[in-house]
Amino acid sequence: MNRVYNFSAGPSMLPLEVLEKAASELVCYGECGMSVMEMSHRSPDYEAIINDAEKMLRDLMNIPDNYKVLFLQGGASTQFAAVPLNLIKRTGKADYVVSGQFSGKAFKEAQKLGYDVKCIATTKDDNFDHVPVITKDMIRPDASYVHICFNNTIYGTKYGYIPDTGDIPLVADMSSCIISEPVDVSKFGVIYAGAQKNMAPAGLTLVIVREDLLDYAEEKMPTMLEWKTMAENGSMYNTPPCYTIYMAKLVYEWILDMGGLEVMKARNVEKAAVLYDYLDNQNYYIAPVKKDSRSMMNVTFVTGDADLDKKFASEAAKAGLKNLKGHRSVGGMRASIYNAMPRAGVEKLVEFMKAFAEANPKN
Amino acid sequence: MNRVYNFSAGPSMLPLEVLEKAASELVCYGECGMSVMEMSHRSPDYEAIINDAEKMLRDLMNIPDNYKVLFLQGGASTQFAAVPLNLIKRTGKADYVVSGQFSGKAFKEAQKLGYDVKCIATTKDDNFDHVPVITKDMIRPDASYVHICFNNTIYGTKYGYIPDTGDIPLVADMSSCIISEPVDVSKFGVIYAGAQKNMAPAGLTLVIVREDLLDYAEEKMPTMLEWKTMAENGSMYNTPPCYTIYMAKLVYEWILDMGGLEVMKARNVEKAAVLYDYLDNQNYYIAPVKKDSRSMMNVTFVTGDADLDKKFASEAAKAGLKNLKGHRSVGGMRASIYNAMPRAGVEKLVEFMKAFAEANPKN
Repeated sequence: MNRVYNFSAGPSMLPLEVLEKAASELVCYGECGMSVMEMSHRSPDYEAIINDAEKMLRDLMNIPDNYKVLFLQGGASTQFAAVPLNLIKRTGKADYVVSGQFSGKAFKEAQKLGYDVKCIATTKDDNFDHVPVITKDMIRPDASYVHICFNNTIYGTKYGYIPDTGDIPLVADMSSCIISEPVDVSKFGVIYAGAQKNMAPAGLTLVIVREDLLDYAEEKMPTMLEWKTMAENGSMYNTPPCYTIYMAKLVYEWILDMGGLEVMKARNVEKAAVLYDYLDNQNYYIAPVKKDSRSMMNVTFVTGDADLDKKFASEAAKAGLKNLKGHRSVGGMRASIYNAMPRAGVEKLVEFMKAFAEANPKN
Repeated sequence: MNRVYNFSAGPSMLPLEVLEKAASELVCYGECGMSVMEMSHRSPDYEAIINDAEKMLRDLMNIPDNYKVLFLQGGASTQFAAVPLNLIKRTGKADYVVSGQFSGKAFKEAQKLGYDVKCIATTKDDNFDHVPVITKDMIRPDASYVHICFNNTIYGTKYGYIPDTGDIPLVADMSSCIISEPVDVSKFGVIYAGAQKNMAPAGLTLVIVREDLLDYAEEKMPTMLEWKTMAENGSMYNTPPCYTIYMAKLVYEWILDMGGLEVMKARNVEKAAVLYDYLDNQNYYIAPVKKDSRSMMNVTFVTGDADLDKKFASEAAKAGLKNLKGHRSVGGMRASIYNAMPRAGVEKLVEFMKAFAEANPKN
């Protein structure tokens, strides 16, 4: 097997050890005579898996006891609707920060549902090359919540700080940075994340919600989107995405075995530095993101020439460096270097970038 | 590996050949250097998989061209809300048949959303031991649709006919009988099904919808529940449950290789007959379902003594016949014998039933 380095923004690389373990027990899990895929979600064997997954995630992220952990379906896009449907009844209005495409979609979804939502800050006019500075005075004092996207996959930006929203719950989409480093969960009202970037294959959505925020759901909303219903049923109001949760458990275990999120962060800091240090010390590629907003997970750069960008992605793919093309809405290149990307992959990318720059001089 | 016969109602058995194939290519799919779990959903490799899955399903079920096939998330329970949200604007009201727990939940969900829905028939007073006969005169002439659950997993009943609803679209939850036999799709407005019984691991929901029914969605509804949005984006409005769709493809391929749904049906008819013939020719066990409503997928029976029922399920499990306990809401036993259950499993069950009856005489 000739394994490639896959820089896809999601679905994305999974740790090889995790894939190998999953393959080895796919047909038959332990002594139970069946695949995890075939287990009744109400069986003791499966309950052990989902309970372990939750316990491991709580350990990893140091999730306080007054937060519920939900394993759901539908992706962050479903949560774009679920967030207002579950929270807006606190006060009837909510505030949003638009720092990229997905936070913009979250804002528009709340608008579409007919709610009084306000965009309190955006970096649209700067092509989303940084995240806004959020201060308490920007927030409506009677907002039900403030919504942010903590890491912007497409633009390669991330909050270098946790906005202080005072008593107003902070809701964060962490799809592309979840479990990449420790985060103080107690500073958030709700954290949610699609799993397919840093946690598991696509098809699982994580929601971490403070218990006191479970009582504001709209009455006339789809039951499946009610966090409270899911919390009361241990994510098993209906059949959960069992196998994907099992895969997440293997990933959590992989990080715990490594030493947890502090160790993961050190690895990720080092890995990102390989790429950013190179970018900062050459003048062929341009890294558009402002330094204080740089993402550790998604690194964007351009040559400044669309044809060269295209050539770059195509030749990199031939060299075993896949999916470096930037998002279709922005062009250029993007290297997504999530937890499972080995440092060797980033080093190989930098070698390739050097060789490409030499072989393709700009006029 | 000591593989058991798993009679779970869902998630449930998958064909051994499918599991083995999935295991063999889990770490690395073909020549692409990565797992299907790691593929960008926008990559040509993955697009080939989802396109093949749709094409195979269309072949299998002979789905007319004017129907869209959607691969979604959230289970049938999400569709309980999506159905009225997408269709009720046709006329503002809808009719439901309540023939068991899940059709009851679908009805209640539409009520919860505040709609004018009517239960036009139920077999509740008969403990759901058969499905109602639906005739056109029972249906409100201005109903947006008529909703039925085609196979009732918990009670072990199934429609032996397709209700004639005239011009009013028939919407059917087929979660527990989909692709178990040929069905005339053109008689339905919408067919939906959770995948975890007969199609794939949990985490995938299939919706087959007639194109002219895509124009009645509520404005203020979660975008992710809009069939039209999903149809316009080839089920890729956001990241789909990629790996589960791949698993479904392997299952479709398995049935096509076998000869398609006619062959599958013949196998299922034979398999169910092994169990029903035995049940009809003894007097230890009671099969509560009326003959014309019997499910080919879920076979329910009781001893008439709750303690004996418990002993049965427990001893059967020890003999490698797992998950025969009936649903917690009804008790007794239930043998779910979906496509992937081999005939040998049903034969072993009947042998066990005979031995159990002899060893445990009733007073």
